[in-house]
Formats: sequence, C-alpha cells, structure tokens
Amino acid sequence: MQIEIVTIGNEVLSGRTIDTNFAYLARLLEEASVQVAWHTTCGDAADKISEALTRALARADAVIMTGGLGPTPDDVTRKSVATVLGRPLSLEENVLASIRERIARYKWRMPKSVESMALIPRGAEVWTNPVGAAPGILIVHKDRQPVILLPGVPHEMEALAKEFVLPYLRARTGRAVETFTLRTYGLAESILHERIGVLGDSWSGASLAYLPSWFGVDLRVTVAGRDVAAVHDTALRAYNELYARVQPVVYSEGSRNMEEVVGQQLQELGYRIATAESCTGGLLAKRLTDVAGSSRYVDRGFVTYANEAKVELLGVDPEMLAAHGAVSEAVAGAMAQGARERARVDVGVGITGIAGPDGGSEQKPVGTVFIAVSSPQGDAARVHRFFGTRATVRERAAQCALDMLRRHLSGLPLEPSFE
Amino acid sequence: MQIEIVTIGNEVLSGRTIDTNFAYLARLLEEASVQVAWHTTCGDAADKISEALTRALARADAVIMTGGLGPTPDDVTRKSVATVLGRPLSLEENVLASIRERIARYKWRMPKSVESMALIPRGAEVWTNPVGAAPGILIVHKDRQPVILLPGVPHEMEALAKEFVLPYLRARTGRAVETFTLRTYGLAESILHERIGVLGDSWSGASLAYLPSWFGVDLRVTVAGRDVAAVHDTALRAYNELYARVQPVVYSEGSRNMEEVVGQQLQELGYRIATAESCTGGLLAKRLTDVAGSSRYVDRGFVTYANEAKVELLGVDPEMLAAHGAVSEAVAGAMAQGARERARVDVGVGITGIAGPDGGSEQKPVGTVFIAVSSPQGDAARVHRFFGTRATVRERAAQCALDMLRRHLSGLPLEPSFE
Repeated sequence: MQIEIVTIGNEVLSGRTIDTNFAYLARLLEEASVQVAWHTTCGDAADKISEALTRALARADAVIMTGGLGPTPDDVTRKSVATVLGRPLSLEENVLASIRERIARYKWRMPKSVESMALIPRGAEVWTNPVGAAPGILIVHKDRQPVILLPGVPHEMEALAKEFVLPYLRARTGRAVETFTLRTYGLAESILHERIGVLGDSWSGASLAYLPSWFGVDLRVTVAGRDVAAVHDTALRAYNELYARVQPVVYSEGSRNMEEVVGQQLQELGYRIATAESCTGGLLAKRLTDVAGSSRYVDRGFVTYANEAKVELLGVDPEMLAAHGAVSEAVAGAMAQGARERARVDVGVGITGIAGPDGGSEQKPVGTVFIAVSSPQGDAARVHRFFGTRATVRERAAQCALDMLRRHLSGLPLEPSFE
Repeated sequence: MQIEIVTIGNEVLSGRTIDTNFAYLARLLEEASVQVAWHTTCGDAADKISEALTRALARADAVIMTGGLGPTPDDVTRKSVATVLGRPLSLEENVLASIRERIARYKWRMPKSVESMALIPRGAEVWTNPVGAAPGILIVHKDRQPVILLPGVPHEMEALAKEFVLPYLRARTGRAVETFTLRTYGLAESILHERIGVLGDSWSGASLAYLPSWFGVDLRVTVAGRDVAAVHDTALRAYNELYARVQPVVYSEGSRNMEEVVGQQLQELGYRIATAESCTGGLLAKRLTDVAGSSRYVDRGFVTYANEAKVELLGVDPEMLAAHGAVSEAVAGAMAQGARERARVDVGVGITGIAGPDGGSEQKPVGTVFIAVSSPQGDAARVHRFFGTRATVRERAAQCALDMLRRHLSGLPLEPSFE
C-alpha cells in the first residue's frame, strides 16, 4: 500500500514549526508495511487543501491529512475534505457531548466555536481522541480509498495514530509485520555495515535500516509478509543472526536509551552514583536524572567548572592540576575518585575536556575529553577526541561516559570493538 | 512571488531523517519576501521527481529542489530535471576541474562517479559550493520560472542558499525586506496578542508572527516593499511601537538566548555564580555552560539530588528539611544561599521541585517548582507550577530560573507582567 501524507498548516509552511508529525507517521507506518510515496505540505486555505487532496487521491492508495481540525476560523480542513469527497458535514451529537464532557472536566470555558469540532463528514467513522478534543476521522472514499484526518497537535496525532491508524491499516493491508531495533554505540555506520555484510536469502522479506545519531547507530529490522508464522520465523532468524554479528556494541533494544540501561544496572547492583563534571557542565547529571525514579541511585553531582571547585569539592591535588593541567587523565581519575569518596557512594564518574570553540592546543585540540570511572570494580580512565561544535562535543562526551559506565559495570572491555 | 520547495530523498520520506532543510529555506526566503506556497517530498526515483517538478511548475512562480545531486546511482535529480525542462546534460569542464581540485586538496580518492556532479543542464548557471563538491544549479525555465537545484547536505544547502539563492531572489522580486525579532518570556501568546492588538495602518507592509516555544514567545516582524527607504521607516516605526508595548517581557532580540543574556549580565557586574539543583538535575548548570567562555562567570554547580547532599554540600538545615520538606520555598532559599556561601561567589540559585511523573501530592502536584536567588541585590524565592512531562517541567524550570536571575540582576519585578 502506497500512502500520501498531507500536512496542513501555515506555521509549518513558514518554517517556524518543524513538522515532526510527518516523520513520526512515516516511521510508525513501516510497522504496517505501508510505504509513504509522497508528502505534501500546504497552508490553511480551502483551495490549497482541496488541491492537495485531489492530487493525493489520484496517486496514492490512501491519504492521511494532519492539521486544521481545531475550532478557530483558520481550521478549514474538514470543510475542504467534505467538499472534495462529496460528503456534507453534519453535527454529530455524541461527538459534541464528548467534547463538552471533556471541557467540563477541565473546567474550561467553552466558546461556541468548539462545536465545529463535532462537524463530521457523512458516513465517516469517528475515532475518539484519548488526549484532546478533536477526534480522528476516517472516510473510505468510493469504498476503496481511506482518507484519514488527524489533528496537528503532536501528542494528539501520535495517540490517535498508535491507537487507531496503525491497527486499521494493518488490518487493511492484511500483511503481517514484525520489527525490532538493536541500538549500538561506539562504531561508525560504515564499520557496522562491513561487519553485517549483505543480508542473505534467509532474510527474505526483511529490510535493515541504519539509523545514525550522536547517540550511536540504531539497527532497525522490519519483516513483512502475508503469512504470520513465516514472518515470525524470519524475524526470529534475523534477530539471532544480527545480534550474533553486532552483539559487542549493542547497548539496548527497542527504544530504551543509555541512561535507562545504566540506571537499571546501578539499581541491580545496589549502587549509588556521584558525577564530577567540568566540560559537560552538568549534562551527565541531567542525563542520569532524565529517568523517572533516578533518585534511587543518583546521589549528587559536582559541576566543578573552576579549578578551585575541583580542589575544594573533590579533593583534587592542586599540584596535580599544575603538573598535568585540568584537562588530563590524572585529573579525570582524581575527579571520579573524589566524587565517589566525598559522596560516600559506590560509583564516581569524572569528565574533563575542551568543548571549544576556544581553549584547544596542539597536544589537546578542541574535542579532547578525558573520562574516568571509579567503583568497586576498579578504576579506569580513557581519552577521547570528539568532532563537532561545542554542543556536539558535550553531547557526545556525555553519551560516551554513559557507555563507558555501562561497560565498566558489566565487566566488558571499555573500548567498543568487534575484536 | 510564490515558491514551491521540493525535497528529494528516500531517507526523508521514510521518516528516518527529519527535513530541516525545508524549514531553513522557508525562514530564509521570508527575508526576500518570498512565500512558500507548497512543499512536496518525494523519493529518489526519476518518475517521482519528474512528476513533482511538473506539478510545481504548474502552480508556483519558482521552484527550489534539494537533494539527489550527489555522485551515487540513487542521485537522479539532475537527469530528471534535464528531461522535464528539455535541457540535456553536458559535462562542464570548469565544474569538473573545481571538483577535482577540491578532492585533491583533501587528499581523497576520486571515484569515477564523482564526474557526474559536473553534468549540468544546458544553459544553466552554476553556483560554486563553498563547503562541498556538488554545485548549486539555476535554470530559468522559459525565461521566466527559476528552477534552483541545491544539494541535500544541510550545511552545503545553507551555504548556497545564503550566498546565492537569497540575493538572486531578492534581486528578482525587486523587493526590499527588513526583519527583526523580539524575544519574550513569561506570558502566553494570547496575552501578548491582547496587549499588542491589531496592527495599525502605520504597519503597512509589515507582518507580525508569534513563535511560541517553551523558551517563551518570539515576536518576529517582517517588512517588505518596493522602496528601500519606506521599508526601513516602517521597520523602525514597527520596532518602536512593538517594543513600547511588550518591553516589560522582552529578554533579548534576534537569536540571542537567555543563557547568553544572563551570562553577559554576570560578566558586566563582575559576578561569579554557583547553582544548586535538585529536580533539574544539572540542567541549569548545563544551560549556563552552553555558552562559550562561561568559565569567566560560572564557578561551580551542586546537583543535590539526595537530601544528605543538600545538608552536606549546601548546609541546608536538616530540621528545615524535616519541617518544610525538600520541595519548599525555605529549602530553595537555603540552597541558593548555601551555594553562594560555600562557593564564596556573588550569586547563588536554588531549584527544588517535583518533575514527575511520581512524587506529586494534593498540596504540591507534579510540576511544582521552587526557585530562589541570592545575591548582593538581595534574596528572593518564588513558586511555579509547570505543565507537561518530566522533560518539559525540567526544561521550563531551567528557563524560568534564568529569567528570574535576569530580572533579579536588573532590578526588575520578578513576575513577568505588563502592570
């Protein structure tokens, strides 16, 4: 099934709002083995919406439109769609009642205009919005082409897409689909590609996507086919083969991120942690505490930007600072140990480096970062060179520190490699 | 002038790569008074590219296409465009020479396929890529419709757009354009809208955009017209009028962010700062140190997640913790003072709150955050209720703390308001 997605909204067309809805939908639809063939964005104008829908109906098997379903006068999607599809709008009492009930629950004033959200094209199916007022709308044009309308507010669109659109399209395509993701850290896409090689015949029906970001490279496999059992077999085989090839650099599966993995390790070991950061300026502590419930294992963090702070809060020897410089393996180690000792916790991490854009030298260019860990498993330190802007160097350093922690706590070699 | 932007790329259509090029171009084109009427995304397939271009030529005054100009076999843009516009490709020797020269400079191996980047449609103008190999290409279709091809790599596309596309379209539209942005924090879009009211006749040719994010609401004004002097006059008048209306909540202009504003204040006052964070877990320190050169005024940060850390590192009275709870105005104040005293600096900030999703109560629901400042200007504390997820509450709290710091250091009332 080939689909066209139409985004409606002046704020998107002006470049002021980045259209994250589209990418979310495209990735989600992969799970129903639905391919996005076209994506069109137009403004909140009836003639533009009509043209976009007419065009989409001419070239795609199904259409999803997002945006323009709100109560204000510039929300004209439902009217344009009703006209193009020849299905007049009528006020659906049960939709209106549920909107009213929702508004009463939150004690909002209800402007008259809200009623327009209960105007539904004739013969449409209504999908109740679990997190907002505007419902999703499904019209099957000429009994064969689904046209789906979703609100533009991202969390509302996402909730409706997951709860209704995905199961609906899955049932309609009649295709079984399984997906899985292995998240890797530490090796470039090209090295992973070399290692994995060409997918063999046993992968028939499976596709592999490399999704790189500064958090690592995610490997996402989608298996689709007519036969549920065959799809399941292929997915299982693909999983086992892929995992066997890249296992040394896999840190998690699905959508679990590095801070959740490390958090669970700390909890399982019954360890508490303290961080000592210079160049990352609190980002590592922020990442660790992004996880709900992290107070069970995060004790405290020291952001020791000034050298005096390193001496006073972490007990770093001033002579060491003078001899090696603040950006050095010795100081990173002393920071990790100092954090661990001063906080009387099990694990300390130290990060010191040059995030740039200034402060680099021939020996220690911008991007040089020393990361150290101290725990009952022992002490370790490593130097890294990260490329990019100040922001990128800091993000990469924090992710690298988390992976080093993960490897250290698991007794794995600290360097990501296939050796 | 109405323009259509066409993005070409399977990776964008699959949702794996977010198309930031489009938003960049749309915002840049505003400066040439060019409106984006349509945005279409299609895959790397000759028939799709041809259809997209044909459609765009039928409904827009000009077309910009990005992507598919590289040397690999899936880069088919130039061939499709050549066919649709009836301008056969030929190898341009000077383009090839400059690509070769560039590759030699970086000591790359040059695969034969690179030569395809020197294939240019007949009669086209070539814009040399200042940061990459693939040049920009301009074809004026039937002597009236510009079709512009740009590479998809963001920094290459941006460099070419700024250096060639913007001046070219500006000259073509013959319109003068000025823009300015006032950045506000603390009041909702609807309240700003009420305050600003309808733009009067003196704003003729000017448009005002409200750009909300969790960092506040940016007010962006664009003035366009035929006459340079008149545009300048209107821009000046618009600036003065708008500024007079919203001045109490303006924290900066242009693209300067809150951490830069606060950083400059601290530097001008000759102050050093220390942070004490609980629920934000290091995010405030991270924001302050996002700024290059922040070591001149950031001394240290305490991430006191555990109550013991608040007592040991900041000297918060354990009895106060027991009596008021860790999330209280008293403790926020003690954290700010403790950070200031223990670090022996001029300014201390304390943040304690409930980021969620758990830990809320009837009196202190999730999103309750106390923020305190201590400085030679005095001590102050405020309670806030932020809506949203754990991540949103934390981001909002950090931004709010920075604005409170800014107001405190300037001697302004701490509450954003027009009173």
